[in-house]
Amino acid sequence: MTEPNPFASGIAFCEDRFVPIDDAKIPMLDWGFLRSDAVQDTVSVFDGAFFRLEDHLMRFERNWTKLRMRCPHDRDTVHAILIEAVRRTGLREAYVQMLMTRGRAPVGSRDVRLAQNKFWMFCIPYVWIARPEQKEHGLSMHVSGIQRIPKESVDPTIKHYHWLDFQMALMEGYDRGADTCAVIDKDGNISEGPGFNIFAVKDGRVVTPPDDVCLDGMTRDTVFKLAGETNLHVSKRALTPDEMRAADEVFISTTGGGVIAITRVDGRQIGAGQAGPVTKRIDGLYWQKRKAGWYATPVDYRAPLRFEPA
Amino acid sequence: MTEPNPFASGIAFCEDRFVPIDDAKIPMLDWGFLRSDAVQDTVSVFDGAFFRLEDHLMRFERNWTKLRMRCPHDRDTVHAILIEAVRRTGLREAYVQMLMTRGRAPVGSRDVRLAQNKFWMFCIPYVWIARPEQKEHGLSMHVSGIQRIPKESVDPTIKHYHWLDFQMALMEGYDRGADTCAVIDKDGNISEGPGFNIFAVKDGRVVTPPDDVCLDGMTRDTVFKLAGETNLHVSKRALTPDEMRAADEVFISTTGGGVIAITRVDGRQIGAGQAGPVTKRIDGLYWQKRKAGWYATPVDYRAPLRFEPA
Repeated sequence: MTEPNPFASGIAFCEDRFVPIDDAKIPMLDWGFLRSDAVQDTVSVFDGAFFRLEDHLMRFERNWTKLRMRCPHDRDTVHAILIEAVRRTGLREAYVQMLMTRGRAPVGSRDVRLAQNKFWMFCIPYVWIARPEQKEHGLSMHVSGIQRIPKESVDPTIKHYHWLDFQMALMEGYDRGADTCAVIDKDGNISEGPGFNIFAVKDGRVVTPPDDVCLDGMTRDTVFKLAGETNLHVSKRALTPDEMRAADEVFISTTGGGVIAITRVDGRQIGAGQAGPVTKRIDGLYWQKRKAGWYATPVDYRAPLRFEPA
Repeated sequence: MTEPNPFASGIAFCEDRFVPIDDAKIPMLDWGFLRSDAVQDTVSVFDGAFFRLEDHLMRFERNWTKLRMRCPHDRDTVHAILIEAVRRTGLREAYVQMLMTRGRAPVGSRDVRLAQNKFWMFCIPYVWIARPEQKEHGLSMHVSGIQRIPKESVDPTIKHYHWLDFQMALMEGYDRGADTCAVIDKDGNISEGPGFNIFAVKDGRVVTPPDDVCLDGMTRDTVFKLAGETNLHVSKRALTPDEMRAADEVFISTTGGGVIAITRVDGRQIGAGQAGPVTKRIDGLYWQKRKAGWYATPVDYRAPLRFEPA
């Protein structure tokens, strides 16, 4: 008889060792918690392979650099930790998040620059924002009057944890029976939703909010690549809530499920009330190419350890 | 021989029990961390007594209610936990923070409303933003161009942990040799600093930014009370950086030290370059009244346990 795998329901890398997900904890006094001074990047694993892992590692590095952090591990080591974590769980579909926290300055100092920054990661079973069976029917969305934290306060291209705007907007949405929500920018235009970017399609043309009012999404960037391959034009420009409500199709892009149709906005049906042709074309191409190994980094589940921390 | 006190350098209340501060941890997957969906309130203990404890407990309750959280303990129990924590440390001067985290919705749900919210607290030796010997000379301040997260995104009266704006502004300040920093509101006026409110004095009149661009500070409120007792007029109105740089005196109010003079702003000397008469009058009255038991809740360090968790 074999022992049950202690990592089957998830794993984390904490204080330089792997622990079962239920034991994954961070120090209460770490400024990553007490000041939300932290940055993350999330990669998906599908069919036993990471998607765009190198791009995620580069974005992660770019973002902790923007926060003037230093990662205690080089990129190859982070790469090896991520692969090894997934291998240990045995998960073929996984949601993998790497993160850095500020740590804390020595006792008596408030100098942010003196903190020893810390690297962490966790891996859990894949989180679907929409389950596959929900995708044909699509999701309903509430457009909140809450503004996404603006670039004048925090750089929106950094994947940080300042989510109270989203959390409050989500509660508004759930109260109205919606599945999810969008928040706006300071001019009242669409910004993004909790963990996803937003696209609207009208007369075969696709519009998405400009770079400086939303997250630099990896799946958003993937949509640009896929659109390019199918001669679909995508404009980055201001998108008003009214324009979105009047669109033929609306979809979101996210590491938690790829491309997902939004078929109701603020209670109003979008197009025919189910995933439209442009959404289906991009979604289909996304999964077809992923299955064919596009940007894939396979995990060898039977390999000997490539990274064994102390 | 007596055992050394395991709580002498700090204590925390985690998952319904007291632990030494070095063991204080929160689950990595708690949305209090991953979405910074959390709220805190910090009380000071000086000379063995809490200051304005009931007011802090009420504000804390008001703020977790705004976030639609539910505290697992009633106010009397929270009160008892705080007192017991300080008693166990033996600290006569302490910094006590109570906090709530969202917790996490059941696996498979993203519904924020279904999360089981959690209460935590910690107590560490008093954190002085300015040590007593620095107070006469005062601190230097950098006014950053970074904007405090606006009320259109997150309610500024909630003591939340979205601090990346402050952290980046602090780094700018330290780079310029300043001791601390201020951030601005969306109109370019002074908002607040990391953990404190700001006041400027000109020709005997005191100005502080209005309620909707800064934290509803307890020490700020205390300054209003003290000013009232000494017939000093305090206006809540927009304060420009230029007006602050040209002030006779500038001071900050904070639970981490009371009333502290700012004697340089952006390298320019304020007034005579040391704590001025209005600052000293309010600071003196603050400590004089605290020592006399104003709003004090004394800790009985020899009392039997008033709260013994499982």
